[in-house]
Amino acid sequence: MPSTQLTFSNRDEHRAWLASQSRLPRGFRVGTASFDFTPVEADKPAAMTLTVIAADRPTSDFAAVFTRNAFPGAPVIIGRKRLAAPKWGAILVNNKISNVCAPGGEQTAESICSAAAEALGMKASEVLPSSTGVIGWSLPFEAMKAAIPSAVSALQAGSFLPAAEGIVTTDLYPKVRSTRVGEGRIVGIAKGAGMVEPNLATMLVYFLTDLKIDRQALRESLQFAVDQTFNRISIDSDTSTSDTVAILSSGGVEDVNLSDFRAALLEVCQDLAEDVVRNGEGIRHVLNIQVKGTPTDQDSVSIGKAIANAPLFKCAIAGNDPNVGRLVQAIGKHLGAAAPSFDVAGMTLKLGGHEIFRDGVFQLNPAKEAALVAHLEQAELYQSAPDPRGNYSPPIDYPPHERCVEIEVDFGVGRGHATVIGGDLTHEYVTENADYRS
Amino acid sequence: MPSTQLTFSNRDEHRAWLASQSRLPRGFRVGTASFDFTPVEADKPAAMTLTVIAADRPTSDFAAVFTRNAFPGAPVIIGRKRLAAPKWGAILVNNKISNVCAPGGEQTAESICSAAAEALGMKASEVLPSSTGVIGWSLPFEAMKAAIPSAVSALQAGSFLPAAEGIVTTDLYPKVRSTRVGEGRIVGIAKGAGMVEPNLATMLVYFLTDLKIDRQALRESLQFAVDQTFNRISIDSDTSTSDTVAILSSGGVEDVNLSDFRAALLEVCQDLAEDVVRNGEGIRHVLNIQVKGTPTDQDSVSIGKAIANAPLFKCAIAGNDPNVGRLVQAIGKHLGAAAPSFDVAGMTLKLGGHEIFRDGVFQLNPAKEAALVAHLEQAELYQSAPDPRGNYSPPIDYPPHERCVEIEVDFGVGRGHATVIGGDLTHEYVTENADYRS
Repeated sequence: MPSTQLTFSNRDEHRAWLASQSRLPRGFRVGTASFDFTPVEADKPAAMTLTVIAADRPTSDFAAVFTRNAFPGAPVIIGRKRLAAPKWGAILVNNKISNVCAPGGEQTAESICSAAAEALGMKASEVLPSSTGVIGWSLPFEAMKAAIPSAVSALQAGSFLPAAEGIVTTDLYPKVRSTRVGEGRIVGIAKGAGMVEPNLATMLVYFLTDLKIDRQALRESLQFAVDQTFNRISIDSDTSTSDTVAILSSGGVEDVNLSDFRAALLEVCQDLAEDVVRNGEGIRHVLNIQVKGTPTDQDSVSIGKAIANAPLFKCAIAGNDPNVGRLVQAIGKHLGAAAPSFDVAGMTLKLGGHEIFRDGVFQLNPAKEAALVAHLEQAELYQSAPDPRGNYSPPIDYPPHERCVEIEVDFGVGRGHATVIGGDLTHEYVTENADYRS
Repeated sequence: MPSTQLTFSNRDEHRAWLASQSRLPRGFRVGTASFDFTPVEADKPAAMTLTVIAADRPTSDFAAVFTRNAFPGAPVIIGRKRLAAPKWGAILVNNKISNVCAPGGEQTAESICSAAAEALGMKASEVLPSSTGVIGWSLPFEAMKAAIPSAVSALQAGSFLPAAEGIVTTDLYPKVRSTRVGEGRIVGIAKGAGMVEPNLATMLVYFLTDLKIDRQALRESLQFAVDQTFNRISIDSDTSTSDTVAILSSGGVEDVNLSDFRAALLEVCQDLAEDVVRNGEGIRHVLNIQVKGTPTDQDSVSIGKAIANAPLFKCAIAGNDPNVGRLVQAIGKHLGAAAPSFDVAGMTLKLGGHEIFRDGVFQLNPAKEAALVAHLEQAELYQSAPDPRGNYSPPIDYPPHERCVEIEVDFGVGRGHATVIGGDLTHEYVTENADYRS
């Protein structure tokens, strides 16, 4: 859960809070440019935003982790090579098309990096390309190249918010989190609403800091924080081909306590990871799944993921229906397949703090059922209602609160534990994804 | 795919065909009784049907496989013990409540078996209990015991169809398949519409035959057929706590060729397995996923399951949107996590016979896109439309055709192959499962 429980009553209130979080650390500027184009694989017009995140001076202190999908996008392939580069100076992000397995995709991405580097006075190898959107389509090189001067002329050192807004696709609202460490700051933005069960990295997430942390320490800190946060969320079990988390340090603030930095980065990662789920496609309930008493932490992660990805349980939550039988089913299907000898005899389950399973049997009655329904209702982000054509769209463009459905599973056999964040499965998810590209 | 491609234009036509398939093999009778009751865990009235499937004489020739879920229902626990019994004479099935992890659940199931055995003139150990429905609730023992005489007095030797109708929960229509082997027959019925990704067994499926096959051969034949069919389907990735497949032989027809029997059982299992998917909760497109060129058959099964369970791809299919990027994403997320060194360089993909991926890149253009849309449209079982309150319910109670979305994946590196059957993810699935119990 976030370190503070926020509530917002409308979009303006949320945007004001985002703006307050978005002040750029010293040494960075961001700019965006939007334009229309027609993908060669389809015959419908589309819109794209190009976002430039630039360091005033290329820095040797950077880190990034990428998707483990076996069909990574061209930007991920290039990004992995760039990890060995002496310095990074900019991140160039486009939405709408993810440049995955498209003919000539790597060459196109390199060419766009070259054009951006020229405009920024950097080397092409200092520019990290990053793309999100439809898989399989080709980037519109000429249109993107033409937009670079506009994005570069828009560069400003005040706020990260234009970038947070520029990188979104199906997100309902931009996501920004920041924290202070002494005289310096860490500010992060995230894009991601569907195809989200990160594996090693997640979605598009960019952190900027003015805290001087060297490359090796940055990499270790980022890997640790990502494993604890973004690798423990799931919206729909699907792992994007473009997942990327990157951090750049401008290094203006020296003599940083590394433990303080690691704790601060972990906090911002956790807050952003939960933001990503809260803003997940169609999500109306966030699930906070705490698993403990397992032999290893990884066992707890796997069990938590099995719950977060069980469609029948997710649908029940969407309907404020505490169908706890489906919760036990989800745990049992995972353990039965993955660990048939796992000791389940001591398992206890709580939902919203109410004990629902102990000593191998359910603990249910009509009064408890009513309390469980009330717990689900207070965690609902918005009520679901179709438009006249029967399509369901989220009626909010801000997060009204940060309350979760609280699930606690304890096996009592070991010291392994983990918290996994997931969501429900709703009509809004189906509406959004049954015709995403049109 | 079924051995014959059937089409039906209305419910009556389908029921007439079912009736023609349902003639009981010699030596069996079935009867049902329905009644109302109030579950102790809830305060709403509910309806249950009790189905008795009885052999004229208990037989030593029987076989069954059960769920691998780590929290099996009481009937599954009892059924596993019954595998060592000398003879089985009857199967006693109830719907509405699955008797999983309910207080005293095993004892209740044994008591009901005893009552049924007495009415049938058998031993309690000769009766297999079987339950499906809500997980976590307790069976209404008194109401069930009171219904046994009605079910027994309804026993008739003509048709299996009353049992196929008696065991359903959210199924749209009963499922029966039969085949002849020489002078004898195999007839099977299936219940299952959600929580279906069987592991070792599936849902509730009962086969009756008058072909004389001894117990050991029956068990080997059933295990083989289940592994090839029911263990290669998925509706929603959820594995029921009650999955059961059982077969009883009355043995009237001697001197059966075992190979013929095995082939016939495999055929009926395949037809019923595909029926289960076609009638899956909310399913509007059946996916026939053929994977080959992998090192082992199990690799092909795993890749096929990853496609069948990828929510974003399933939603796209529901919208007749050939979003093939999501297909590649699904394969890549599985292999990236489970087999990072798997050789994907030679992968080719076809959808509806159209090549969409080769040599590491997509093969797409607007004309092919139109052809892919047409393929998806012809495989649609019905068009989706909400009622005035925005709820989506399937408008059919029969299977109009057996056409599938045809997906072919070839890795070209080995001789492993498998066909996995899955479906799309629709508003109808969410509507059905967001408030199943009320």
